[in-house]
Amino acid sequence: MAGPLSGIKILDFTWALAGPYGTMIMADLGADVWKIETVFQNEQRRGGGPYVHGVSTYFFSANRGKKSVMLDLKSPEVKEAIYKIVPQVDIVNENFQPGTMTKLGFDYETLSKLNPRLIYASTSGFGQTGPYSARGAVDIIAQGMSGLMSTTGHVGGPPARPGYSIGDMGGGIWTTVGVLAALQERNVSGKGQHVDVAMLDAQITFLENAVVRYTSTGDVPGPVGYRHPIGTPHQAVPASDGWVVVAGVKDHTWPLFCARIGLDELGFDPRFEKAADRTKNYEELEPYLFEAFGKRTVDEWLEELAEVCWVGPLNTIDKMVVDPQVQAREMIRELPTWTGETLKVANTPMKLSRTPAGAEHGAAKPGEHTVDFLKMAGLEEAEVQALIDQGVAAMGPEDPESVETLSDEQIAQRVAAGVRRSLPATKS
Amino acid sequence: MAGPLSGIKILDFTWALAGPYGTMIMADLGADVWKIETVFQNEQRRGGGPYVHGVSTYFFSANRGKKSVMLDLKSPEVKEAIYKIVPQVDIVNENFQPGTMTKLGFDYETLSKLNPRLIYASTSGFGQTGPYSARGAVDIIAQGMSGLMSTTGHVGGPPARPGYSIGDMGGGIWTTVGVLAALQERNVSGKGQHVDVAMLDAQITFLENAVVRYTSTGDVPGPVGYRHPIGTPHQAVPASDGWVVVAGVKDHTWPLFCARIGLDELGFDPRFEKAADRTKNYEELEPYLFEAFGKRTVDEWLEELAEVCWVGPLNTIDKMVVDPQVQAREMIRELPTWTGETLKVANTPMKLSRTPAGAEHGAAKPGEHTVDFLKMAGLEEAEVQALIDQGVAAMGPEDPESVETLSDEQIAQRVAAGVRRSLPATKS
Repeated sequence: MAGPLSGIKILDFTWALAGPYGTMIMADLGADVWKIETVFQNEQRRGGGPYVHGVSTYFFSANRGKKSVMLDLKSPEVKEAIYKIVPQVDIVNENFQPGTMTKLGFDYETLSKLNPRLIYASTSGFGQTGPYSARGAVDIIAQGMSGLMSTTGHVGGPPARPGYSIGDMGGGIWTTVGVLAALQERNVSGKGQHVDVAMLDAQITFLENAVVRYTSTGDVPGPVGYRHPIGTPHQAVPASDGWVVVAGVKDHTWPLFCARIGLDELGFDPRFEKAADRTKNYEELEPYLFEAFGKRTVDEWLEELAEVCWVGPLNTIDKMVVDPQVQAREMIRELPTWTGETLKVANTPMKLSRTPAGAEHGAAKPGEHTVDFLKMAGLEEAEVQALIDQGVAAMGPEDPESVETLSDEQIAQRVAAGVRRSLPATKS
Repeated sequence: MAGPLSGIKILDFTWALAGPYGTMIMADLGADVWKIETVFQNEQRRGGGPYVHGVSTYFFSANRGKKSVMLDLKSPEVKEAIYKIVPQVDIVNENFQPGTMTKLGFDYETLSKLNPRLIYASTSGFGQTGPYSARGAVDIIAQGMSGLMSTTGHVGGPPARPGYSIGDMGGGIWTTVGVLAALQERNVSGKGQHVDVAMLDAQITFLENAVVRYTSTGDVPGPVGYRHPIGTPHQAVPASDGWVVVAGVKDHTWPLFCARIGLDELGFDPRFEKAADRTKNYEELEPYLFEAFGKRTVDEWLEELAEVCWVGPLNTIDKMVVDPQVQAREMIRELPTWTGETLKVANTPMKLSRTPAGAEHGAAKPGEHTVDFLKMAGLEEAEVQALIDQGVAAMGPEDPESVETLSDEQIAQRVAAGVRRSLPATKS
């Protein structure tokens, strides 16, 4: 079945993660995404390791469902071809440093003259305006400058980086929201526009609570550890075989919660009876909680506390991917690689009842759609061949990338051995 | 100027953060959002503290720009009124536990019969399907079960929760993407549909790299600390007066980087010459980096390294809000409260060139638009008054909430005193 963006065509100049993550979302929604790679260096190599089955897993995950075109964007013939294709597309997305697309002749002003209905999205570190605009940024710079890292880690300890590249992905998903809103508006006005999203700004918008709290009270938020800064208990706590998360214990359920964890007397201890006191006296409370929870397994606590409060396992990734709910929601999808194997990726979280979205197709082989693309520009077979001979268009390598990859046997051994940098089962 | 969703009307049954964050995005985009509060308990109280100027800052930030209606959803007269309004709206959004809207008579099946063009969005902890569907979840449960917390914190240490409620906000922003995609599709087909987004699923989609890496190699990702797990240096490092983030040092710029930090000889040390070796021997490298960076201030390092690699300050929230780039992008907006004061919120990151989006209006006073809403259902003034007298509709309190709030003077004192739970300037 066709996704909700079926019929929407995207010319995708993105690279690395911030840009490709946004066009990945649109590909999952059924858009027809033509991703342009340079002829000089495969994006799959930019993505980096680990390489499996001759494929960059980093690249594969973020670029599933897109077509692949390899071009030299500095070639006048290629530029001419792209100018002929721009009137045929709905959306252009790019995440070069501001100024690069202008130098290449593919800036919004130029392309919107060729197609006034064009929605042109730019994702960048700092945005198209402001004093830092021309500077580059990567994920960890956005995470650091926004204040996110200053609020992540353990109380009194050094800052930490959340374990996913939300600095990049935040830029990508907010760009997608902006593009889709502009698409709705175009259905009314018939006109396109420029959508400018900065990775730094995206993180600030996610830090909404920290911003209003600091600006209204003067309190500078610090790292929150494994707890909620206000509610108690509202935290991760180590069980005998892993961590469990509990939340939503209220004053009137606190005695019940204490009884269920085998500490009846704690439920009526004046230090902990009221929520505010539990938070204030948390240092005194934690040893009781840790000792009590350490006596039983995660699964036992999930059952014991299911009716008492919100409770769930603090899964490591290996546990998450086999969770029955995750399986039932089909959140892990196996997709074919261009080398004839398969890889598993995280599916889209958007379940649409009539026009389903989803990760349906693997990443295309780099250059697989170069010829189709140039034909869209009206080029004849011979003209396409001339560009390939000239080295400004390419169809990609016939063979898998000549990079060190893990064999099936090696992977099976590692899975069996449980190779991991996992969490300790206790606090320290 | 009108935003891109100008003319789009949303009936908003959301509460807490996951749902309201999504409809906040749509309000920032110019949609006409009618948010329904219960007559029994103001959402502003659910939001919790800190309260400033008689307003829950938590509530204010996530609900700016929305209209406010106070109703008893169990009242037959109120239900009748809502049934008359449903055909007039484009979108319904709710984030109750699955089953609640059915009990109330406001489920997708019922409402879509009244309005076949309706886009109906449900945000929930685990989604509308699967074995855990009926369970509730809050932010930290989604962060824990998805695996995010297992990848956040310091190497070898306990898990940590990223310092913002991305478990909630992830549900909200992915719902918004789904709704906007369904809106585009409706412009083609004329039909609405049901959008079902789980907070857990949203986090899994953000964990895309961890999923493909674990499933393809067997490596279970663990906490990453303040570093990138593969690149080195690609991390936060303490300067003399705070932390700085550096990234993107390549093999050929490593000697230059070392020279600039005053460690010329390190640039040619065989333990660190190649990227893979720098990562492998990081434990040996870190003491050199920390000692070198500790000798100068953050600002000095920003200048020294600007041409060498990606570099930025690891801002605390107080530093971020006054950053010249953040100011230039107008990312902090001052908005009026209904009590006649102002609060500052994080603006939207989406800069649209022709139909700007933005946080333009404060949160409405609870119940401020109850009468207007009921008139949309065709009720006469006397009928509205009857519902208010009956206690199933309300216009909210005349006075600010009778909760403990900080006075202007108290806030000024706290800001001056620099009240903070801030980061230490060194590692431990």
